Amino acid sequence: MNIAIVGLGLIGGSLLRALRAGGHQVVGFDADPGTRGLAGAAGFEVAADVARAVERAELVVLAVPLPALPGVFEQLAGHAGLITDVTSVKAPVRDLAVKHGVRRFVGGHPMAGKETSGFGATDTALFAGCAWVLTVESETDLPDWLTLATLCTELGARVVPASSAEHDRAVAEVSHVPHLFAAALALQLEDNPLAGALAAGSFRDGTRVAATRAELIVAMCGGNASEVDSALGRLIGDLEQMRHALGTDPGRDLTPAVARAGELRRAWPSSPGHPANMTATVDGLLDLGRAGGWVTRVAEDMATVETMRPESGRNGF
Amino acid sequence: MNIAIVGLGLIGGSLLRALRAGGHQVVGFDADPGTRGLAGAAGFEVAADVARAVERAELVVLAVPLPALPGVFEQLAGHAGLITDVTSVKAPVRDLAVKHGVRRFVGGHPMAGKETSGFGATDTALFAGCAWVLTVESETDLPDWLTLATLCTELGARVVPASSAEHDRAVAEVSHVPHLFAAALALQLEDNPLAGALAAGSFRDGTRVAATRAELIVAMCGGNASEVDSALGRLIGDLEQMRHALGTDPGRDLTPAVARAGELRRAWPSSPGHPANMTATVDGLLDLGRAGGWVTRVAEDMATVETMRPESGRNGF
Repeated sequence: MNIAIVGLGLIGGSLLRALRAGGHQVVGFDADPGTRGLAGAAGFEVAADVARAVERAELVVLAVPLPALPGVFEQLAGHAGLITDVTSVKAPVRDLAVKHGVRRFVGGHPMAGKETSGFGATDTALFAGCAWVLTVESETDLPDWLTLATLCTELGARVVPASSAEHDRAVAEVSHVPHLFAAALALQLEDNPLAGALAAGSFRDGTRVAATRAELIVAMCGGNASEVDSALGRLIGDLEQMRHALGTDPGRDLTPAVARAGELRRAWPSSPGHPANMTATVDGLLDLGRAGGWVTRVAEDMATVETMRPESGRNGF
Repeated sequence: MNIAIVGLGLIGGSLLRALRAGGHQVVGFDADPGTRGLAGAAGFEVAADVARAVERAELVVLAVPLPALPGVFEQLAGHAGLITDVTSVKAPVRDLAVKHGVRRFVGGHPMAGKETSGFGATDTALFAGCAWVLTVESETDLPDWLTLATLCTELGARVVPASSAEHDRAVAEVSHVPHLFAAALALQLEDNPLAGALAAGSFRDGTRVAATRAELIVAMCGGNASEVDSALGRLIGDLEQMRHALGTDPGRDLTPAVARAGELRRAWPSSPGHPANMTATVDGLLDLGRAGGWVTRVAEDMATVETMRPESGRNGF
């Protein structure tokens, strides 16, 4: 397949490597001449601008940060091929695609990353075993979705189908808000060296991602502000309930929530059950994602998918 | 030294092992006959009740859970020797000691632990490198404090001096509240398998201690309810500020807090500077603890201590 990748940072550059290793024709572009130089020196075909990168592409992967997406979409106005992206928020990107008249768009979000960034940190195996959301909406063209799912599963990813809205809510809960919790806990060290001297494992783990680059955390949370606000509001409500329980009878009032949290955490990640085949439909895929399941393979008929679901049904526990 | 240890769980039992390995005469007691049997079978002297355990003791270590402490203090009424404890909250234990007319009391809290518990999990090396708070109050008898500091440093611990109130505030911030944050994050998995399927590193780390046994978390937080309530209140205020920043201009309003959190986290744990000697005084020890410093050794004159402080002064950063 002819694939153009716009943006050659950690994700885009790793995709360039992984897709070429998978036998595809890839061409890359990055706004930064230094990055283009690195990719060229690594033996990749690199275009001088977006238009030239995408002219032969059956698939365009947008791997630029969210703030750069509007400019790239503008340059792609009228593009007839399939387009996907890899940013950590999906509803705003879907809106951009609609705004710029892109018809063949399927949003994507590979949940892969590491502490380092840039083309120098790229890794052919980055996507092996990671969850890769491909968005499913009422208007989704299933053949396009299955084409992308084929590529992602060939890279070793678990393809999780979800609507943009469901995706944005879930990542606010399990990824964006945890970064803000970690930051709040770490801020307690300000002018508080005694606390720093007494901090041990629970602090170390609970604050680890606070060390992520601030601009990444802010871009991630700011790009998903409405869902992060809702999730934070729910969590603050839970914390207020815990405060109340502490002030009454902790043994009676705090234990149920803490015990349930322990059960849920010990049951995570849930064990996958057995593979099963299903015919891909919009509703069937959305149900699969809501059940905590994913696609492991697309059959050659480009209509059937092999799926996995957590072992004990809908709750995954 | 003749030392009695009341309570032979993970901490008490490990102390029994470590102190005997250090050449002390130790005798243990546990309310549970099975635990007494295990300790006896491991070759330790085990008393049949508290009174017999402490009759020859120059030092009594209370290593029972907080709810069991009042009963043990009652049995120690009138005991003339030095008493310490190992529970995770210090002001309520100090109040109990005063209530039961114990005069020679120095509170302690070794910040050591592991996922397992009970005598079967005990470990001679449990205290090597751990922070061990020994409380310093205006009424503290320095020779008693230095006797305990000698023992703890001989076991490899860093002895952190702090008042009971300062200790309870600091552990609420860096240990107790992180457990509640982890529980709140983990509770988001309820009826939410899609979120569980998308959760990755930030969720894994931020919820790790939610898997701790619920009764331990509840006892820890409930025993320090007032400080945990205050710390939770401050953190909820910080989270509300972050929500506000998300709703205005995240780049401008959220970045400063997130960037500062990252600086504080990357600078933790702080590097110790060079060892220095000081004459132990109540005020000098409290200043050392407030600066994030600790005692590494007590000199033979039983008046001078070797100390370490974080490298760049009061803030530890």
